[in-house]
Amino acid sequence: MKSKVRIALAGFGVVGGGTLQLLREHKADVESRVGAPVEVKWLLSRKKKPASLVGAGVRQTTNWRDIVNDPEVDCIVELIGGTEPARTMIVEALRAGKHIVTANKAVLSKHWNEIFGLAQARHKLVYFEAAVGGGVPIGQALNEGLAGNRIRKIAGILNGTTNYILTRMQEEDLPYATALKEARKAGFAEADPTFDIEGIDAAQKLSILASLAAGVWISPEHVHCEGISRLHDTDMRLIQDRLRSVVKLLAIAESTEKGWILRVHPTLVPRKHPFANVRNEFNAVSLHGNAAGDVMLYGKGAGRLPTSSAVLSDIIFLCRQIANGTAGELPYVTCPPHRKAIIARFD
Amino acid sequence: MKSKVRIALAGFGVVGGGTLQLLREHKADVESRVGAPVEVKWLLSRKKKPASLVGAGVRQTTNWRDIVNDPEVDCIVELIGGTEPARTMIVEALRAGKHIVTANKAVLSKHWNEIFGLAQARHKLVYFEAAVGGGVPIGQALNEGLAGNRIRKIAGILNGTTNYILTRMQEEDLPYATALKEARKAGFAEADPTFDIEGIDAAQKLSILASLAAGVWISPEHVHCEGISRLHDTDMRLIQDRLRSVVKLLAIAESTEKGWILRVHPTLVPRKHPFANVRNEFNAVSLHGNAAGDVMLYGKGAGRLPTSSAVLSDIIFLCRQIANGTAGELPYVTCPPHRKAIIARFD
Repeated sequence: MKSKVRIALAGFGVVGGGTLQLLREHKADVESRVGAPVEVKWLLSRKKKPASLVGAGVRQTTNWRDIVNDPEVDCIVELIGGTEPARTMIVEALRAGKHIVTANKAVLSKHWNEIFGLAQARHKLVYFEAAVGGGVPIGQALNEGLAGNRIRKIAGILNGTTNYILTRMQEEDLPYATALKEARKAGFAEADPTFDIEGIDAAQKLSILASLAAGVWISPEHVHCEGISRLHDTDMRLIQDRLRSVVKLLAIAESTEKGWILRVHPTLVPRKHPFANVRNEFNAVSLHGNAAGDVMLYGKGAGRLPTSSAVLSDIIFLCRQIANGTAGELPYVTCPPHRKAIIARFD
Repeated sequence: MKSKVRIALAGFGVVGGGTLQLLREHKADVESRVGAPVEVKWLLSRKKKPASLVGAGVRQTTNWRDIVNDPEVDCIVELIGGTEPARTMIVEALRAGKHIVTANKAVLSKHWNEIFGLAQARHKLVYFEAAVGGGVPIGQALNEGLAGNRIRKIAGILNGTTNYILTRMQEEDLPYATALKEARKAGFAEADPTFDIEGIDAAQKLSILASLAAGVWISPEHVHCEGISRLHDTDMRLIQDRLRSVVKLLAIAESTEKGWILRVHPTLVPRKHPFANVRNEFNAVSLHGNAAGDVMLYGKGAGRLPTSSAVLSDIIFLCRQIANGTAGELPYVTCPPHRKAIIARFD
């Protein structure tokens, strides 16, 4: 057993701040679950912060090489977001023998094979529960809770912005433009909402989930993707009253005889289906296991503390393995590369 | 690393047969997830079975002492059900240095403190994912996926029989007696349904979940329990149309200022709440984490393969730790005894 695990927090924005807060508030619990104290040795941010905010004993730097080059650091928690310098830092950290926790969907979507190829070669772990589904422990369910299953279908409401807009349109008869405006006001939509509205965010998350199930990387380029911006004139009332259904932006991955098919598009969901009551900014994912049948997970897909909760559960799971000396013994826990995925065209 | 993990299957009924089937079908996958082959060395059953059914190389016995006394056995998978001889076998197995996987809610409800006290003293693990929620990976979520949270409220639809009856009463306007008869026909109710109907089954499951969250055993005796048999004359249509709600038998555990309060009773659930669309024999559990917020898990709470799926995920998680030599290093993963639960009266 290691007597202490040392981590570096890279990024001190919304999720970085939340993660540091949880690490402090749950200090005793984290230590008992890991089996050793977890020390935040470094904080990487753009500007140095007051020590009162960061805590005594935490070193600060604005240069990521400082944390990658510190041989005492066991694990880097990457929360800076975006593709660069996140990618270079992760790659150099793996080369330097460090494990990774990340919440960064963008860097995984673009550099999956490079990152996991390197992680497997070096027997390092890369955990990313927060990158898909925020506070919903979906990666843990795929990797462990449903480990006794083959997952051949995944369907989910993976984007909170579009789900919020659709819920307001349907429940309050709002036109699309008004619902979008309200989503912005409530903090659920960006100034430029294209990434969410057009289904790109959902497609990136789906590609990550499908890759976990398939055991090989399926890029978001293979996702047939249609957003909700063409629903402007859809008669939501007719859909509800006559078809007894609601419209949801579903992300669906299926293993068929032809191979995996991945798609994101607005879908009619019967009112009695569990997805129909996934409202506002909530997310849900349904996994179809050959033994367990349909298992659905539901919760907050974004936000400071839900995302930080996922980061912290990764930190705990990883640091326990670091503490007991088994981290990286089995490469499978990130993405088992034992099958070749055939990716079918959606038509 | 151990080159092989040897388990004994105790019990060859519905779940025992399902577990053996899954272990065989997923052999390569199990081995890659565990990091070593998992060999079923023994099968304990009331009568010896044909070798064609059991598989070559599996020894059979009708005496549980044979598997407890075999020093090669690392883990006993207890699927015989009931309190005896299950309790004695588990206790003797722990004393003999074996880890346990069990699907047996009854034995845990009655002998929790004895079993986990012994497990902790001997640094052995007792996993029981299948004992609550069947195929729904709720224990894994509580222990790992939401490890970065304090769970202060649990609410769930934990009994498939009553949920099936209530769904049929509400959706098809059936009287209670007819719905119960149909539940029997569909295989979702026993000849004597008291255990399910009166909420005792849900209370036992709730006490297990609350104990995991509280970190100390809260016996089902502390659960205020009211079943659905007094709903005979309830006007379901009025509840649906005028109150826009459905009736669900909810099991609720809350940590309050006075202590934990546990209760099972019929509850009005608004039609737009995620619980409202948990229909027929399905189960759902909502966990309120201080960071993640409300996280719900949904799936099949019973049945041969869903239950076997949960048993197999426990086997994989446990055998990996046996293979890499860390099983039992941390006692917390079963029930962390670091807090004293104060159990409030429900009034």
